[in-house]
Amino acid sequence: MPYPYEITVEVAFRDLDVLGHLNHAVYFTYMETARTKYFVELLHLKGPQELPVILAEATCSYHSAAFFGERLRVGVGVSRLGNKSFEMIYQITAEDGRQVATGKTVMVMYDYTNDETIPIPNELRARIHDYQGDWSP
Amino acid sequence: MPYPYEITVEVAFRDLDVLGHLNHAVYFTYMETARTKYFVELLHLKGPQELPVILAEATCSYHSAAFFGERLRVGVGVSRLGNKSFEMIYQITAEDGRQVATGKTVMVMYDYTNDETIPIPNELRARIHDYQGDWSP
Amino acid sequence: MPYPYEITVEVAFRDLDVLGHLNHAVYFTYMETARTKYFVELLHLKGPQELPVILAEATCSYHSAAFFGERLRVGVGVSRLGNKSFEMIYQITAEDGRQVATGKTVMVMYDYTNDETIPIPNELRARIHDYQGDWSP
Amino acid sequence: MPYPYEITVEVAFRDLDVLGHLNHAVYFTYMETARTKYFVELLHLKGPQELPVILAEATCSYHSAAFFGERLRVGVGVSRLGNKSFEMIYQITAEDGRQVATGKTVMVMYDYTNDETIPIPNELRARIHDYQGDWSP
Repeated sequence: MPYPYEITVEVAFRDLDVLGHLNHAVYFTYMETARTKYFVELLHLKGPQELPVILAEATCSYHSAAFFGERLRVGVGVSRLGNKSFEMIYQITAEDGRQVATGKTVMVMYDYTNDETIPIPNELRARIHDYQGDWSP
Repeated sequence: MPYPYEITVEVAFRDLDVLGHLNHAVYFTYMETARTKYFVELLHLKGPQELPVILAEATCSYHSAAFFGERLRVGVGVSRLGNKSFEMIYQITAEDGRQVATGKTVMVMYDYTNDETIPIPNELRARIHDYQGDWSP
Repeated sequence: MPYPYEITVEVAFRDLDVLGHLNHAVYFTYMETARTKYFVELLHLKGPQELPVILAEATCSYHSAAFFGERLRVGVGVSRLGNKSFEMIYQITAEDGRQVATGKTVMVMYDYTNDETIPIPNELRARIHDYQGDWSP
Repeated sequence: MPYPYEITVEVAFRDLDVLGHLNHAVYFTYMETARTKYFVELLHLKGPQELPVILAEATCSYHSAAFFGERLRVGVGVSRLGNKSFEMIYQITAEDGRQVATGKTVMVMYDYTNDETIPIPNELRARIHDYQGDWSP
């Protein structure tokens, strides 16, 4: 089942390490690019920093290497909505169909003014439900 | 006049600095992405490291800031062919037509086996002429 | 208990995101810097690419934000040695004593010539034991 | 003659390209690290974004490659103070004494509130003169 939101990124020369493989930290940047664009589209933001969330955890499982010039699909969706936190999952696939990586991030809703975690607003909850329809991971 | 080779890159969250502007060093990475893809296409390489060149100098003039999510056109062309070195110029433009940056790099042909600079091979010279036609900067 | 190997990294301007926080993907790069230096020292390598391992999984738990100019300690150690794979754990702490992040990576021993996973060589196993002494996470 | 301000940076695995050389764009990041720390120290800032300048031009001349684990000295100084703009120059040297790179940036004083270039404040001018003494490039 396709992910609620997908982007395409192309592996650039700068993204490679000495062995010619996509560097492992850059996977997290690709997932961040997908995540930030998802929220900007979902909430019509000017920039992702308008959504007050904190990243609590990030994980990536590497299934195969990726190489210069490959165009990768990065899918993202909210997979769990808790009270103050939510989870997003990611899937990175290559054009030849092979699975490159899967990932997960845990995000916490945050009020930067009062410097404290806050419940996920109902409006955000509803928007995500509307946007993702009956997608389930 | 359009540049001989052009790519489109989208400004990602990670490419921004604290002020929300595209970081100045990332412009050089965008130009590198255009340059490496130009040579891979021109010479049907597997990766840009197959072309034995050394970067001797790189310059960028910043004309306007660029922002999250902007899709930039990065044009590149060989603007001068010397004996052992050549110059490439770059133009970065935004979708709204404004000029974002221009750049230049000086590249030197290099024999990594014997660790010395070498004349530009005639075949490479001819390929560039063919590919670029009568483009002149 | 101190980690078997530690480095100090200073948060640079380029490592920040729009909010002025150390970007989440850069934590993985800091951990990679510690990991690669650990192996280069342990095995007297010229570069970390001489150790034929593949990263299978990487996780980071973010405990507090880090800021421009902060000097962070990044500790690393091998926390589990399996047959073909091993785990490393990481701890990032700030000069004021607060815990910034903890992380884990799973590495798989790999023979790039035959393109297959291989058992961890006994020599590597012994070196790690010697180097780490009776450290346990 | 030593530069007015110097930092040491160590070439990390992530800073390398496929050939095992320090990537050309990372030189600009090293120079940025030196520049931002120079101003934070000079003006007792919390972060370099407090100094309202715009980068107008950046150039780097590459004299020799740099490699994994090398500790590089990056010197920086203001080499010219104009009315609204000023120049800074940079020198990157390795521990074995070889010159790795030299660079230059042109910075323009900027009022972000009114969105216009402004003359360099006399106080900043004086601070730079005091700090740099009779250093001249």
